[in-house]
Formats: sequence, structure tokens, C-alpha cells
Amino acid sequence: MSPLTAQQADILAAGQWRPSLASKTFQSVNPASGELLPYHFPVSSWEDCDQVLQAATEAAERLRQLPPAQLAAFLEAFAVQLEANSQALCELAHRESALPLKPRLADVELPRTAGQLRQAATAARSGSWAQAVIDTQLGIRSCYEPIGPVCVFGPNNFPFAFNSAAGGDFAAAIAAGNPVIAKANPSHPATTKLLAELALKAIEETNLPPATLQLIYRTSHEDGARLVADPRVGAIGYTGSRHAGLVLKAAADAVGTPIYLELSSINPVVILPGALVERGDEIVGEFVTSGLMGTGQFCTNPGLVLLVQGAQTDQFLNAVTAKYEAAAPGTLLSTSVQESLTSAINTITKAGAKLLCGGQAVAGQCSVSNTLLQVSAEAFIAQAEVFQTEAFGNAALVVVADNVNQLGGVLRALEGNLTGCIYSDTQGADDAAYDQLAPLLARRVGRLLNDKMPTGVAVSPAMNHGGPFPATGHPGFTAVGIPASLFRFAKLTCYDAVRQQRLPGLLQDKNPTGQTWRCIDLKWTTADV
Amino acid sequence: MSPLTAQQADILAAGQWRPSLASKTFQSVNPASGELLPYHFPVSSWEDCDQVLQAATEAAERLRQLPPAQLAAFLEAFAVQLEANSQALCELAHRESALPLKPRLADVELPRTAGQLRQAATAARSGSWAQAVIDTQLGIRSCYEPIGPVCVFGPNNFPFAFNSAAGGDFAAAIAAGNPVIAKANPSHPATTKLLAELALKAIEETNLPPATLQLIYRTSHEDGARLVADPRVGAIGYTGSRHAGLVLKAAADAVGTPIYLELSSINPVVILPGALVERGDEIVGEFVTSGLMGTGQFCTNPGLVLLVQGAQTDQFLNAVTAKYEAAAPGTLLSTSVQESLTSAINTITKAGAKLLCGGQAVAGQCSVSNTLLQVSAEAFIAQAEVFQTEAFGNAALVVVADNVNQLGGVLRALEGNLTGCIYSDTQGADDAAYDQLAPLLARRVGRLLNDKMPTGVAVSPAMNHGGPFPATGHPGFTAVGIPASLFRFAKLTCYDAVRQQRLPGLLQDKNPTGQTWRCIDLKWTTADV
Repeated sequence: MSPLTAQQADILAAGQWRPSLASKTFQSVNPASGELLPYHFPVSSWEDCDQVLQAATEAAERLRQLPPAQLAAFLEAFAVQLEANSQALCELAHRESALPLKPRLADVELPRTAGQLRQAATAARSGSWAQAVIDTQLGIRSCYEPIGPVCVFGPNNFPFAFNSAAGGDFAAAIAAGNPVIAKANPSHPATTKLLAELALKAIEETNLPPATLQLIYRTSHEDGARLVADPRVGAIGYTGSRHAGLVLKAAADAVGTPIYLELSSINPVVILPGALVERGDEIVGEFVTSGLMGTGQFCTNPGLVLLVQGAQTDQFLNAVTAKYEAAAPGTLLSTSVQESLTSAINTITKAGAKLLCGGQAVAGQCSVSNTLLQVSAEAFIAQAEVFQTEAFGNAALVVVADNVNQLGGVLRALEGNLTGCIYSDTQGADDAAYDQLAPLLARRVGRLLNDKMPTGVAVSPAMNHGGPFPATGHPGFTAVGIPASLFRFAKLTCYDAVRQQRLPGLLQDKNPTGQTWRCIDLKWTTADV
Repeated sequence: MSPLTAQQADILAAGQWRPSLASKTFQSVNPASGELLPYHFPVSSWEDCDQVLQAATEAAERLRQLPPAQLAAFLEAFAVQLEANSQALCELAHRESALPLKPRLADVELPRTAGQLRQAATAARSGSWAQAVIDTQLGIRSCYEPIGPVCVFGPNNFPFAFNSAAGGDFAAAIAAGNPVIAKANPSHPATTKLLAELALKAIEETNLPPATLQLIYRTSHEDGARLVADPRVGAIGYTGSRHAGLVLKAAADAVGTPIYLELSSINPVVILPGALVERGDEIVGEFVTSGLMGTGQFCTNPGLVLLVQGAQTDQFLNAVTAKYEAAAPGTLLSTSVQESLTSAINTITKAGAKLLCGGQAVAGQCSVSNTLLQVSAEAFIAQAEVFQTEAFGNAALVVVADNVNQLGGVLRALEGNLTGCIYSDTQGADDAAYDQLAPLLARRVGRLLNDKMPTGVAVSPAMNHGGPFPATGHPGFTAVGIPASLFRFAKLTCYDAVRQQRLPGLLQDKNPTGQTWRCIDLKWTTADV
């Protein structure tokens, strides 16, 4: 164990900021300047993990007994803290991620994060998320209940909205009644620490168990796998790279602990010929905006464009290429993103794709020139796996098919994705092609869009931010959208002949809020039994 | 490949009964007499698996396009076939399983199976199971949709109700719009073949794709794992032994295919002192009936009884022991059930449990004497894993604690179970103990019962026949109960800005049946948008 230095950041365990029992430390980097940030963060040992697990187990028992309104009050108090500390949070996140202060961090992501917390609070208060089902004839009643401590691993690309200490999985896990063990993303540990400090204030204000949120920054690979497989863990939420996610999935699967993953997605966009004829210029603009937004570092970035050959397609590609070349490449989140992006581009070009523009790291910067690659549908189908290598960042692969049938063949060769889009004309010229292709695409994606790029992920009750493997680990769950995201972190419990006063409030005859939706004898209602 | 003999049973592939490309064959055994039944069943090669997978893929595409009412018509036609052929089915099942013809097979299990098919038909027709969610403001709509071909592996203990070609998983998979590849349980392949013959008649009557149901009987272990991991498979339903289930789970998990397992459960029953004082005799009767019903071969058999020491407990145990000794032991489903039961009893006695009665195989019969074992709570806690060895059959382990606190310790040491029961008195003497123990038990089981043995699993919309690992593979899903069991075999699909006429019927403005429950702008309703 290394001696602790004054600069070493504390972990948050059982409500206390305390030194980690760390084996070593790491620093985050400002990707815009390349400078190391001054904070040193510990790589936790198993002792840290064991202690937070123990505290989380006790917090889970207490949280189950609290009224949902108290969870809601915490989530709302935390939202207020975020807004009150927006400037400090955004400056820190900007330094660690190079994401633009405005509008991105201050005007979009932070308000979205506060909004998610408030929607989760509303869901917790209403209880409708728990899908109470009551069979009055047989005296059987069931609902979803807290699953136990949830480990959340946040991604690099959203320092707030998917942060393990403030983002969507955090809000869902808490609203469902579970404590969270947050594992910071190592590209923005300081931002995560500040978020956890604010969460702790809100925890204290609203009198939740101190271990409702705990924070560690990093573990060894072995301890990470051991953590998720620990019997004290109820469930895991992970957003990040496919490789690391699959290691955690294997560990959790082996002990039957639910793990919800968001791993990778290239988000195919089909643009049908009639749409290009009708409004090619518009679509050029939409694609370029969506493809380069956030330097392409969104899980729903359109990384694969599917077209049918023809003059309008040549024109589209010329126009997009010109705009990609003209736009200044953005700063990437880290040198490791830069490396994996150039490596993916190399893999795809080696497999036979033609480079339309870009393809190179920008000298002296954490940046890659805006990149477009092109391949024929025939070549794509012949090596479908390698051409689906995720190039996370400002790069996209264009596949040009001879005809719509061949485009169908490309769709059949696709892995699971979060989203799929089809652009078609409004006068019916593309309708036959749409009818042929949409069913093939729909079953391979979590969300099918019409005439719209996939990069906006609205926090809507109807959203599905999920999809078939390897986009996620299970095609029945969404990571975004409230209340649906909550019930990932819950277990189904049935009460059979349980005496009325012993039932959870949600299942007693009287509707607990007067407004909670329950399914009584196969009818959804807010009435009492 | 062995030459095919006249007696070798055909497999059902793509709507045709045809010889298997088999490497070898097996026969089922009449457990009551020990005689080999005259039918020879093939162990399918990979070629068989590949062919049924291909046919299922095509059937899945066609099934998606059919109106749900047609699926419902099939399920109802199949129910009629079951009833019309009840006698032949029950006689065959009786020979293969030794389960009593009446009341069990003819009066209980077959009617239940037909009832499940009809409930599934109603669910398919209504569409409410698919949980349509509509956000009118943002133009986002989502629902559950068919997941693709479902492989169903049925257990040995329900030749009808959980049969892979007629039971709960079958009905749920079909009602959700998926074709089924049934793998017969090798202890009742002839029954399964007859069920599939009747299903095929119903398929033909209602004009479903011929490969809506296909049947194989057995594969090698390697081919079984390869089958569930094949990319053409949408999901898997498995009910059976923990060991075989975990092999399939590892194979499916590795490729991210949902697998729903029901593995093992010892179903703890806590009987509090006040209840014994109040109505000890009644509870003796209830326990003996539940424990020995079906020779204890139910997944919800009460295999673990938790008591607090005292005179009323001694009396309870004496009375139960006397009844266990007096009752004739039933015939077990197979010699392999007999072997694993005696092996489990040996494991538990070797670990230090005392034998109250039974414990021996009955000479010359496929039977084990009715068995009760006893251990102290202290000893149980010290070796909790070994004392939770499932003794599938007519055996139970009694744990006697010094006091309620220690009983809490036993509950904390429990693995996941399908059910947990607490018996308490009606005058309040046990209330404090109940309040202490119920939360500990509830989070470790799928269904908590009061004053009632766990062996009845009603087909109720509020039922949860599920629970934490290792009872199942995921604590959020139920294998019994309609409509909830359907959505295991479905993927969530979101339609974002998709044009109205292109939406699935379930998500269009007009309610597709006028009676389908949909959640529109956070309110459940059967109205149109």
C-alpha cells in the first residue's frame, strides 16, 4: 500500500470521505491541452470494495423501509444542487472532457441531468413504475421491489447525464429504492467526485442512509469482476466499451446477477433514393450535424450510412465529403479514444473500404480528421463483422448497394444496434422499399426512426435506449426513459394470501397515492380495490 | 449415423414428420414397472438442429406478419385437441411418468394445460401484454414485439403443463408471436410426440406456418449448447436441473441471447410458534399433503421447514414423522430422480443432519421412503450451501432454531427460491416475529405466502413463478401467469417519428381492438389517441 499523499482524492464510503486503501493512483488529463490535471485518484483495493459493499447492504435494508416520497425528495434536492453548482461542475467537466462549456455542458447536459433526477423523483413518488398487479379473486398480488445495491459504471462521453453518481442509471436505481456504488469513469473522476459531494449534501438534507451513494474511482480488473459477482450486489448498470463490458457480464452472469449493459452501436441510417431526390440537401445537413455533433462521441452516432447507387447518391456523398473536409475536427475525449478511433479506421480500410476523407490523427492534438469511408454492399456482406467495427468518434462508413434487395442483404448481416433510421420521400416513391427494409431493420435495433437522425435520445416514457446484443445485454430493457428504466433495478415479488395489513402499501386495497396505476383484475386503474 | 429402424420415432421439422439424422436412439422407461417402452427416439445430430433453426427463422418472419387473432385461434384449437385426446394423452403420460391418471393427469394437469393455452390466446388477442407506451407530444411510441424462434426445454415433472410442446413456455412464446423449437424431456418423449402431433393438426387447421412448432427429442451436450447459442435463436425457456441449465445459460449468455431458467428451489416454510399452538394439527396436515403431493416432485415442494424449538415444535415433528412413516411412498419419475434424491439425502446426512424417518431407496421400486431430516439452525448456518442441496422428491429438511433471531440468521443464509411461506397465529402472538422475518424472506423469494403451503401455482396475472438466482436466471420474470410470462419472449421496440400508417397496429392512434390497454402520456387507457 502506497503512502497517501495530500493530493490524493478521498473515496466516499458509508457517508464519509476517507482515504482509499489504494494500491496506486492515476490522474485525469485535459484532452484539449494534454496537461495532467492536478488531482490524484486512487485505484481502490479489494478492502475498499468490501467496505462499500457492506455499507451498501445495510443502506439497502434501510432504504426499503423508507417512504418513496423520501427518495423523491433526495432526487429533487440533488437536482437543485446540480443547478446551484452548474458553473463549477461545467468548468470541471470541460477541463476533463474538452466538451464545449456552452451549449453542450451548461445548457444541454446539465439541465438534462437535473431533469432526469426530477422525472425519477416523480416516478418514485407515484409508484406506477412498479407495475402492481392485483388478482382479487385469488388473493394474489405482485409488484416490482428494490433489488439491492446497484453498481453503476458510467461512460466517458457524458460527464453528467450518464455519470455513475448522477446520471440515468443512478437516478433509476435510487428511484427504485436501491443504494448506488458508483465507479467513476477514469476520464472524468474529478467531475464525478464533485457530483458525489453534492449528492452527499442532498442525502444529508433529506435524511437518507449515508451509504445511499458511495464512490470509488477505479479498481484492478480482477477486483472489478469480483465486485460485480459479489453476492451483496443486486444488479449492475454499465455503459462503456464492449470489451470491458463483456468481462463484467461474464462475471455477473456466472452468479445470476442482472447486469444491464450498453456496449456499442453503429446506428445504421438508410437513405432511400426518393428522399435524396426530394430533399438531398436537407439530409446532407442533418447527417453532417448528427455525425459530427460531440465529435461523433455519442452511443447513437450515425456510424453506418446505407445508400442505393445512383446520381443522387454520388451527389450526396460529394456534398457530405466537402462538409466533413471543411469542418474543423473536434477534440476527442481522451488519447485512448483517439487511438481506438484511428485503429478502427485502419481496420476498416484494411478490409477494403475506400477513404473519402480524413482518416488521420491530427498532429499535436487529441483529434482525428473528420472521416468518411466507403464500401460496396457486396464487400460489406462478405466481411460483415469487420465492417461493423465501431469507430467511436467523428467517422462513418458508407455502404452503397446496387439496389434495394442488396440493401436488405446488408440489413440481414447487421448485429444488434441501439437505433436504425430510414429516410424516405413523402410522396410514396420509397414506400415499397421501406416496407421491404423496415421489418428487417426493426428487429435488429431498439429504436426505429423515420426521416430523423438518431443522436437525440429524449427522456420520454416511450423511449427505448436499448436493443439486441451486442448493443446491450438484453433486448427487453431501456436505459433511458422513465419510468421504464427503473424496473431494471427491481425484482418481481408476489404476495400470495398475505394478510392485508402486511402487504406493501402499493398492494393494499387502498391506492397508496390515489394516483398510482395498478392492474386490478386485468384492468389498469388508479382506483382502490 | 445408425441405420434407421421401423420403430424410430420421427422428429417434427418444418411441418413434416421425418426421420432424424440421428447418431443414436434412446427409449423411455415406465418407472412403475421398470419396463422399457417400445418407442425408440433419436438423439438428433447438428444437421437436425440446423434444419429446424432454418425453418424456425422463416416461420418467425411469417408469424410477425399474421394478425394476433390467428395465433389465438391456433392456441384455442390446440386446447380443443388436448381435451378431445385426453384419454390417449393421459394414458401415455401415466406410462412414462407413473403420475396418477386421476385426479392428477386427467382432472388437474391436462385441464390446466388447456386453460393456459386459452389464457394465452386471450392475451394474444388483446395485445395488452405488449405494454404499448405512447408519447403523443414527442411522437415516440414503443411496445414489446416477437423476439424470434424460442427453444423450449421442458422438465420431467409436468408431462403436460410445462411440456415444451404444450406447456407454459410454449403457450407464452407462441402468444408473443414466436415459433417454438421444442426439446422433449427424455423421460416422456412419447407424450411429447403426441402433443406435437395434436399441435400440428391445430397449426394446419388455423393455417399457421408449418414450422410454428418443431420437435426434437435429444441432442448431444455440445449440440445443445450450440443450439441455444445459434444466432437464429431469439430466446430460450428452460425448466430442469441446475447443472444442465447452467451449461445452457453460459452458452446463451456468451452471445447475449435471453435465457429464462427455472432451476431449483427448496421453498422454505417458516412455521412460527403461535401458529403451532393455535392450529398445529391443521398445519401438520397441510405440510404432509403438500410435501408428499406428486411424491414431492414439484418445483414448489416445501423442502425446508424452519421452526423455533419448544414443546409445540416437538409435537409437530412427531406428528409429521408419524404421517410420513405411515404414508406409502409414491413412485418417482425415473431412476435418475431416485438416484439424485438418495444422493442428496446422503449429502445432507453426511453434513450432520439427523434422519427422522425414511432416507432409503425402496428395494425393487422406483421409490424412496418418505424422508425427514433435521438439523439445528447453528449447524445449518455453518454449512448453509450444503444444507441447501435440493432433494427433489419426497424429502424435507427441518431446521430448528433456538429463537426468532437465529431463524433470521438462517433466512439471511438462504439462496434464491421460488417461494417462501410464513405461518403465524391469527391473534397477534407471532406478529413481531413476522415483521422481523418477512422482509428477509421476501427478498430471497419470488413469492411470499402466508398460512399456505407453496405447491399450488395458480395461473393468475399476479403470479410470480420466478425468483432470485439460483431459483431462476433473473429475478424480474415469471414463468407462470398470463400475460406477464409472454414478455420474456419479446424485445422492446421503439418507433421514433415513424409515420402513422407505418406503425404496428398496436401503436397507431386507433386502439387496435378497442380494448387493448396502452399507456398514453403516462395514463393507462383503452381509448384511441
